[in-house]
Amino acid sequence: MKMINGGVTAAKGYKATGVYAGIKKKRKDMALVYSVVPAKIAGTFTTNVVKAAPVKWDMKLIAENETASALVLNSGVANACTGVEGDLKNEQMAKAVADSLNLPVNAVLTASTGVIGKQLPIDVITEGAKLLAEELDDSMEAGLLAAEAIMTTDTYSKECAVTFEMDGKTVTLGGMAKGSGMIHPNMATMLGVVTTDIAISKELLQEAIRADVKDSFNMISVDRDTSTNDSLIIFANGMAGNKEITEKNSDYELFCKALSMVTINLSKKMAADGEGATKLFETVIVGAQDKEQAVILSKSVITSSLVKTAVFGNDANWGRILCAMGYSGVNFNPDMVDLYIESIDGKLKLVENGMATDYSEEIATKILSAKEVRAIADMKTGNGTATAWGCDFSYDYVKINADYRS
Amino acid sequence: MKMINGGVTAAKGYKATGVYAGIKKKRKDMALVYSVVPAKIAGTFTTNVVKAAPVKWDMKLIAENETASALVLNSGVANACTGVEGDLKNEQMAKAVADSLNLPVNAVLTASTGVIGKQLPIDVITEGAKLLAEELDDSMEAGLLAAEAIMTTDTYSKECAVTFEMDGKTVTLGGMAKGSGMIHPNMATMLGVVTTDIAISKELLQEAIRADVKDSFNMISVDRDTSTNDSLIIFANGMAGNKEITEKNSDYELFCKALSMVTINLSKKMAADGEGATKLFETVIVGAQDKEQAVILSKSVITSSLVKTAVFGNDANWGRILCAMGYSGVNFNPDMVDLYIESIDGKLKLVENGMATDYSEEIATKILSAKEVRAIADMKTGNGTATAWGCDFSYDYVKINADYRS
Repeated sequence: MKMINGGVTAAKGYKATGVYAGIKKKRKDMALVYSVVPAKIAGTFTTNVVKAAPVKWDMKLIAENETASALVLNSGVANACTGVEGDLKNEQMAKAVADSLNLPVNAVLTASTGVIGKQLPIDVITEGAKLLAEELDDSMEAGLLAAEAIMTTDTYSKECAVTFEMDGKTVTLGGMAKGSGMIHPNMATMLGVVTTDIAISKELLQEAIRADVKDSFNMISVDRDTSTNDSLIIFANGMAGNKEITEKNSDYELFCKALSMVTINLSKKMAADGEGATKLFETVIVGAQDKEQAVILSKSVITSSLVKTAVFGNDANWGRILCAMGYSGVNFNPDMVDLYIESIDGKLKLVENGMATDYSEEIATKILSAKEVRAIADMKTGNGTATAWGCDFSYDYVKINADYRS
Repeated sequence: MKMINGGVTAAKGYKATGVYAGIKKKRKDMALVYSVVPAKIAGTFTTNVVKAAPVKWDMKLIAENETASALVLNSGVANACTGVEGDLKNEQMAKAVADSLNLPVNAVLTASTGVIGKQLPIDVITEGAKLLAEELDDSMEAGLLAAEAIMTTDTYSKECAVTFEMDGKTVTLGGMAKGSGMIHPNMATMLGVVTTDIAISKELLQEAIRADVKDSFNMISVDRDTSTNDSLIIFANGMAGNKEITEKNSDYELFCKALSMVTINLSKKMAADGEGATKLFETVIVGAQDKEQAVILSKSVITSSLVKTAVFGNDANWGRILCAMGYSGVNFNPDMVDLYIESIDGKLKLVENGMATDYSEEIATKILSAKEVRAIADMKTGNGTATAWGCDFSYDYVKINADYRS
């Protein structure tokens, strides 16, 4: 199993592209992912009560259909809180793409990201759909264009691909995702797409992705705000030629492992590129009573505004980390906790049995100044472990969000 | 019932003061509140698993004793995550004050605020305790000195007092509090003190304060970080001369009303003076299914980083408010929600039945530019209402917290 370059066009039989349609002022704003044969589909979506029109559309379509052929995505307008008119415009977007590709409308999934409360400019979208169909391509560059077209406040595009052997066939999995604000996925993330040529049943595809997000997208947070549009969609078109996976055998395990490589890679990229972020901040909990408690503890640390600002300031203000674990809702003995910080510049024990060690602030600041920083807390109670990814909290988060719409 | 000037020395028989002892570099750092006769005591404290030494001390003392005479407070060092040594130093602080005032040690409550993980400088504290005892005074100025000495990143001191008649006697209630980071009280707040001369049983005093915080201190948040030191302590010395309140009669209701006036006033001051805040941001939920749901919805809005940065930018990005309600955990129909913003500059309906009205962005920005801004969401489902108080999220929050310790 190995990482390769590329994204949604890495696997056999997928084409994609991204274009400038005119929803945003200047940058690319529409993307299309297309499978040349109908692909099994599965997805996980936001748990927010306020669900965007494309989320409602996809949930229904995936529930009622075994396969789909395309996914159209737009940035600039989220099509959330847009009422019946928003649902209609979403269907019009799907229809425009379906017409351009000679597909039935229920073979086209949709995804939107951007400002909440605005209606889709449907004329612009319809023209964009034609342009997308014309420019579809199976090259690596085409995958990149798609990844770029779904960016909002992201500072770089996010792609990942993995390849491995199964039944003597080469299977490939590729994905793309976008952040980078309103990121606190709960059962899914703000627009992630994975394409694969593996042959697998729809049921197992859905089960794999549902299990996967618990350790990948659901373990990241930029600002604790669970979006109205979170969607992770996976296509599996079977063109790798392996024997179709229909039970939880070793092939299924292998697929899940590859899926995890792609989703965790994309998750970390999303956290590291959080709005205003200057670094990736990872929190590892070991020795918790069980996994559930480890998950709660790790997420409480990476979402604390006070921890995040201290990480931005390269300040080893570890009391805030213990404080964040303390209010997480998990019951533990603070007098047993050991705490470390780690980066490419070394590892340092800050706390032993709940109290400060005699550590050097100078070394601590050096470790925290790296681009990827890790806090490790050992609860010394059981075997529960979890890893969560977030980012620091800088002036730029405020700058980006105080005036996002203009 | 009326508001009067003053704070913890407003009621009969209370003295206070604040001094510079030398825990912090320059500013006043120790305060003392003293009742000339033993006062009934009650308190509510942080729910954080990681509890500071003074919190553990006070919880035990209040559980075991009917009355106390003094409360010593220090700022600069929180005495949290300090182990057995921290407990010992806290007791030494209480003992130093007890000796200066000729009291038994268990008549002295303690409270600390500041950096987590550092030990109290006990020599400085002991000298400070003597100074405090010498300068104790029942003047309004002495109360102000105490309120100033407990400030950390607060930009102004917070006091409030109320007076009313009971059994032909004048009863007074006065309080002080401090914020302004790590503020997301859960059953109490980061240092609040209320003194009153009312005669009331300890049981009813405890019950009154426990009920009160649900609508006052527990409804504010600056940064969603529930501190290790949150403490709200109330003294009632009976010197007003009213017939002691021993049952939930109309006198008890009157007392609760006065208490609420003081605690809500202090809560709003704390929210408005949140770290880096430029304005008070209030969220009122009406028409929710029940009160519990209204509380969850209102707190979800005031704690959203995306809502808070939009409020800072005077940007009527209402989608973020609906989004924050949507992920709160409360189930509701987004297509029924009406949303208004209001300030001294007017009131504007932004959303009707879940969709944007045709409002003027210019007027919205004007309303949001005021120093006190309110969002009102009508869920149109039931009779549940709640009000929560927070503040906006500015560059200065990051500045203050990226390098708090130096």
